[in-house]
Amino acid sequence: MIIVPTILAGGSGTRLWPRSRAGLPKQFLDIGGARSLLVETAARFVGDSRFAAPVLAGAADHGFMVAGELAAADIHPQAILAEPEKRNTAPAIAAAAKVVADLCGGEAVLAIMPADQLVRDPAGLRAALIAAAGAAAAGKIVTIGITPTEPATGYGYIEMGPPLAGHGGVREVARFVEKPDLETAKRFFAEGHFLWNAGMFVARADVLLSEMRVLCPDVVAAAEAAVAKAKKTDVLALDRESFAGSPSISFDYAVMEKTKHAAVVPADIGWTDVGSWSALWDVAEKDKDGNALKGDVLARDCRNTLIDSDNGLVVGLGLENMLVVHTRDAALVAPLSRAQEVGKIVETLKAAGRAETQTHTKVFRPWGWYDSLWNAPGYQVKHLMIAPGAAISLQRHRHRSEHWVVQKGMAKITCNDAVFTL
Amino acid sequence: MIIVPTILAGGSGTRLWPRSRAGLPKQFLDIGGARSLLVETAARFVGDSRFAAPVLAGAADHGFMVAGELAAADIHPQAILAEPEKRNTAPAIAAAAKVVADLCGGEAVLAIMPADQLVRDPAGLRAALIAAAGAAAAGKIVTIGITPTEPATGYGYIEMGPPLAGHGGVREVARFVEKPDLETAKRFFAEGHFLWNAGMFVARADVLLSEMRVLCPDVVAAAEAAVAKAKKTDVLALDRESFAGSPSISFDYAVMEKTKHAAVVPADIGWTDVGSWSALWDVAEKDKDGNALKGDVLARDCRNTLIDSDNGLVVGLGLENMLVVHTRDAALVAPLSRAQEVGKIVETLKAAGRAETQTHTKVFRPWGWYDSLWNAPGYQVKHLMIAPGAAISLQRHRHRSEHWVVQKGMAKITCNDAVFTL
Repeated sequence: MIIVPTILAGGSGTRLWPRSRAGLPKQFLDIGGARSLLVETAARFVGDSRFAAPVLAGAADHGFMVAGELAAADIHPQAILAEPEKRNTAPAIAAAAKVVADLCGGEAVLAIMPADQLVRDPAGLRAALIAAAGAAAAGKIVTIGITPTEPATGYGYIEMGPPLAGHGGVREVARFVEKPDLETAKRFFAEGHFLWNAGMFVARADVLLSEMRVLCPDVVAAAEAAVAKAKKTDVLALDRESFAGSPSISFDYAVMEKTKHAAVVPADIGWTDVGSWSALWDVAEKDKDGNALKGDVLARDCRNTLIDSDNGLVVGLGLENMLVVHTRDAALVAPLSRAQEVGKIVETLKAAGRAETQTHTKVFRPWGWYDSLWNAPGYQVKHLMIAPGAAISLQRHRHRSEHWVVQKGMAKITCNDAVFTL
Repeated sequence: MIIVPTILAGGSGTRLWPRSRAGLPKQFLDIGGARSLLVETAARFVGDSRFAAPVLAGAADHGFMVAGELAAADIHPQAILAEPEKRNTAPAIAAAAKVVADLCGGEAVLAIMPADQLVRDPAGLRAALIAAAGAAAAGKIVTIGITPTEPATGYGYIEMGPPLAGHGGVREVARFVEKPDLETAKRFFAEGHFLWNAGMFVARADVLLSEMRVLCPDVVAAAEAAVAKAKKTDVLALDRESFAGSPSISFDYAVMEKTKHAAVVPADIGWTDVGSWSALWDVAEKDKDGNALKGDVLARDCRNTLIDSDNGLVVGLGLENMLVVHTRDAALVAPLSRAQEVGKIVETLKAAGRAETQTHTKVFRPWGWYDSLWNAPGYQVKHLMIAPGAAISLQRHRHRSEHWVVQKGMAKITCNDAVFTL
């Protein structure tokens, strides 16, 4: 049996603002570890021969970042699908199923998961996926349900049915439940047969495609056409016009809540979707006073506080249950208990046209990155890193003069008709 | 009667870190107003014909900043004394008295005050100084005592004696009291005849010098010699060797607590020495929720909070009684109630050799300023502002190559033997 980790890296959440921004969503951040969540997700399967090389799908704007992150981590995917626009998870999963079917055959099993989750017990995750793959090989569409650790209201729930005959550890699905209110969540938590929906699905490529043809034929038709007309470069650029023909719909809604083939594997694997700064604090390594400190931080007499600086010295004095995030151009200070409201703050800032919601001063591009050091009317100073062998586009400026200083390496310069090396 | 505002700008406090640093003490900061405290202090006397042009004294390292600040505010001092090293207030006051005596005659009255205090009622201050000057003309050394608004433990106190015959508003001094404990401060506050010592003194130049000759002859001898051998450039650079001969001692200790000529004028003038971030919050303009916000700040659901950003966007969410200070290279977050501990934090950072206690990324120099945009092994990027007509020193670099881009203005460049204009 071929099991293909299928990693959905299309998220654009800004609930970890100001570290996560539209141009650098949280799957690309090294929160909770030394590597980005995306790399951590892909790396969970490296060296386990039961899993094939991964397939990834992400926003076209971020395709080069997905490719670059994996290459830097020496992980070699079978394919990276670039989604030309946001259409939620169902069309991305349909396209991935089509690609896997073409590459590995229809009986190959996709183990689908988001790129931006933390799992403290990766061996436990792999075991759950292997159990799910057994049922998937027999035609089931299996979701991984996380054993709740608290009556959370931020997740959908899955009610377990009876065990699935012949598949140890796999249960039937009684029903899917939308995010509950606190009272309902407390009841679910007490009753013990409800699981969190973590957005992880395991199914054969041909089962996914045939079931989607029944339940959401317009989605699978658009996705298959987008794959058929895709352009293959570093990534597989799905055809924009075809892909745009799909409704924007989640796989949960389009398939899982309707299919008669649903099953679930309960998993207690130290999982979090890192959906807020407080969720990150929950799982972060902390000092003896409960402080999660990252970067150049001095915490004096602080308790249960998260301080994250990626630029400059941050001093916290006498803080309890607080959140302090410091970046070069924006900072956030709030009680950790209000971390859920960061999304609303970002909406407010977006509405005000604040660039700090979109990009960092440092912006990653296919050829490397640039960091805006100074901006003032009439001039700016940028720090560029152009990757070895890469090039930036030729430009023509009528009203701008540029001065370049090569700090390190050899640069081949084209200026009008002249080509020279610096 | 000539009254000379005599402004002591030698303070180096870092209790408003990270905004105030050793290289930029709080008298040079625009806290509590649009202009620096130094300029605000000098400007209180502009346009009032009862006061002559000011005399200033400050650290030699900051002499050009004192001169530049006043020039930019179109205030023209009689003299700026540059103290070659820190010797506390007594020698600076002795030197100022000598300079005023030389410039205006011995009967001229010095109205001595620190450069880093806020006064909400400048007319009230001037009235108090005029009342004090009346008694000073008759030979008294008069201090301005601030009517307490709370049982503060951070100030020395002055106990008022009976009214001074013939000088309305002036009282004899019963005694000076060191900073009290809270219980004592509460008693002083309740008894109503104690005042805060604000470090403001009013006396004739000749009275100051003759009284100091009796009470602290080594101080006045050193100061007079330092003036006699001073070098006059933009500032009056007191002679280092002479000035260093003075003990380091405060005017309070050397003179006020010993002289038989002490008097005091009580003043209720909205005074604060801005000795901490919480003292600044006390006097700052606040929104309806009690927030004092400065710079690019979004405060959502905050109360009684001070947020100060001189670089970048700062978002405060759900903060109460908090302090957030954000600069380009350092930030501080603490409850306002613990603002008194900032000094200790700075000591810790100093001991660790942190440059953030000494200078900002932007450093003021006699010729303008430079702002360090980027530092990395082997190179750095600086943004320089060279004032019109100013020059930086010629330098020789064996192991450094420099690239200059003139952003605005005309620059005369000297490079080896070549001189050219860019």
